[in-house]
Amino acid sequence: MNRVINDPDRVTEDSLTGVLAAHPDLLVATDHPRVLRSAVRSGEPRVGLVTGGGSGHEPAFLGYVGPGLCDAVAIGEVFASPTAKSFHAAFREADQGRGVACLYGNYAGDNMNVKMAVKLAAKDGIRVETVVANDDCASAPRDQPEHRRGVAGEILMWKAGGARAAEGADLDAVIDAARKTIDNTRSIGIGLSACTIPANGKPNFTIEPGTMEVGIGHHGEHGIAVLPTAPAKEMAGIMLEKILGDLDYTGENVAVLVSGLGATPLMELYVLYGHIDEMLRARNITPSYRLVGNYFTSLEMMGVSLTLTRLDAELDRLLRAPARSIGLSVAG
Amino acid sequence: MNRVINDPDRVTEDSLTGVLAAHPDLLVATDHPRVLRSAVRSGEPRVGLVTGGGSGHEPAFLGYVGPGLCDAVAIGEVFASPTAKSFHAAFREADQGRGVACLYGNYAGDNMNVKMAVKLAAKDGIRVETVVANDDCASAPRDQPEHRRGVAGEILMWKAGGARAAEGADLDAVIDAARKTIDNTRSIGIGLSACTIPANGKPNFTIEPGTMEVGIGHHGEHGIAVLPTAPAKEMAGIMLEKILGDLDYTGENVAVLVSGLGATPLMELYVLYGHIDEMLRARNITPSYRLVGNYFTSLEMMGVSLTLTRLDAELDRLLRAPARSIGLSVAG
Repeated sequence: MNRVINDPDRVTEDSLTGVLAAHPDLLVATDHPRVLRSAVRSGEPRVGLVTGGGSGHEPAFLGYVGPGLCDAVAIGEVFASPTAKSFHAAFREADQGRGVACLYGNYAGDNMNVKMAVKLAAKDGIRVETVVANDDCASAPRDQPEHRRGVAGEILMWKAGGARAAEGADLDAVIDAARKTIDNTRSIGIGLSACTIPANGKPNFTIEPGTMEVGIGHHGEHGIAVLPTAPAKEMAGIMLEKILGDLDYTGENVAVLVSGLGATPLMELYVLYGHIDEMLRARNITPSYRLVGNYFTSLEMMGVSLTLTRLDAELDRLLRAPARSIGLSVAG
Repeated sequence: MNRVINDPDRVTEDSLTGVLAAHPDLLVATDHPRVLRSAVRSGEPRVGLVTGGGSGHEPAFLGYVGPGLCDAVAIGEVFASPTAKSFHAAFREADQGRGVACLYGNYAGDNMNVKMAVKLAAKDGIRVETVVANDDCASAPRDQPEHRRGVAGEILMWKAGGARAAEGADLDAVIDAARKTIDNTRSIGIGLSACTIPANGKPNFTIEPGTMEVGIGHHGEHGIAVLPTAPAKEMAGIMLEKILGDLDYTGENVAVLVSGLGATPLMELYVLYGHIDEMLRARNITPSYRLVGNYFTSLEMMGVSLTLTRLDAELDRLLRAPARSIGLSVAG
């Protein structure tokens, strides 16, 4: 495996050492080795925002900690949930006396560990409310939202929730903004190659050359179809058809996030975006907030994900509010 | 070739369509289909900044156009120089009556085409001065700087030159700042996999699994050694040894840029950065300005580049000045 690592079992901690050295203005260490918190804290106590998830999705999750975004993050090993203790420690770091919003993705390990951590925090007198992102519309049928995974739509959820917290809103209002964001968000991915967890040393799934897996998950979870690799324009059509069939975006202003899964050249993400933009406008949907880049990755997987969020005036305001982090900065 | 493209011969134009659709606040089309200019122009006439180069290095080059950075960019096909006509058109777009600084990398095609374009601009009455980046210290011996290629150090050159232009400096002062930046900059890359130009359909060079090519160029140009793939810490040592042996950084504040070449996971770039940071401090060199990410890539090549710039008070001020672009934004 030709990669930039030392001991494959220590990639996460080696990476965190570098993150802390590179960004002391954004992130600081805590007493818990798998919890980082924002280096910037406003004078006024605010609702604390926490997220967490496995490593290997960078800049998610730690890359979305900073002013206007999350206050603390719990970090798991590569593609593995953070522990309950990590989430609990992150809640304590984020807490400023007004409660904590834990905004994370729908995976079995995360659900279990967050649930335990919420109970532990309650004993500390910290009220934690959660929103569980389930934006991946390819991961389960529409009538089973509880089985759908959270993917890149989480970024927009953190952005809206973080902005609402920065406005001084109370915990219920922050939770409402985060839930509204994810309820109005759908995502889908297409995988073009597998990826290798360093500690495993070889891919734990396969995508045959010349094929693409539509609806693939962020850890290589099976999608809804394996098709011959199509031109970018057809990929755009396939992804949009699934998303627009799941939620009605007609006549809406939308946020569009095209994220690479790791190895796809940025110029190709723009090729895809060009088609998405054109197809949306042809359907009377206006892409008014646009992100194209490697925002939520899966190690060195080749492929893309598409996320669409319906925007009302509030969500539009929250997405455009100032923020600063490794993964997403919005000028004030 | 499993990629997100349509016609392999039209990747560049398809990508530009998407860039313009995604970033109308940053980039606008011009009369020349391979020239974009900044959507933001200050009221006061300033020295115009131009760069240019082949596609496939995104966010370079077009990702460094915007306030505080370049004013216009000439865009070539994948890994190919822009034409003389493109550079000429970019000069005309950037010109605001105070002359144009063309800051680009040392490649035969770019040199030839810029030279022709400068002559064409002179006929228009536009004075163009150039700085040719040659920061890749692995690409030729120290006594042959004219044979060294420009790589990721160009980003710091654009940043310093752009900030100086934004301060209202005249052309000579902008050129001085850009030249000082690149004269104080050294870079080196390590390649871990080849990459495939879509129009070719297969890699035009090879890196055997289990080996790494030290000093590889941004288009797969041969490096100085092919070695068994080393742990990240050894990679950091090899890269630093070459750079620090080429220029004396002892006791200096430095800018450090660790860029992925395309497919290397962000978490691994941070693994490398952690070692670089520690090794620099052990040698009494202070990493005071730090960038870690996919800033200058080579399609889906796996690998990294390291860039170090000695900073005096002026360069430090210029790097921290406000800027906004796809590739690099600095809050005001």
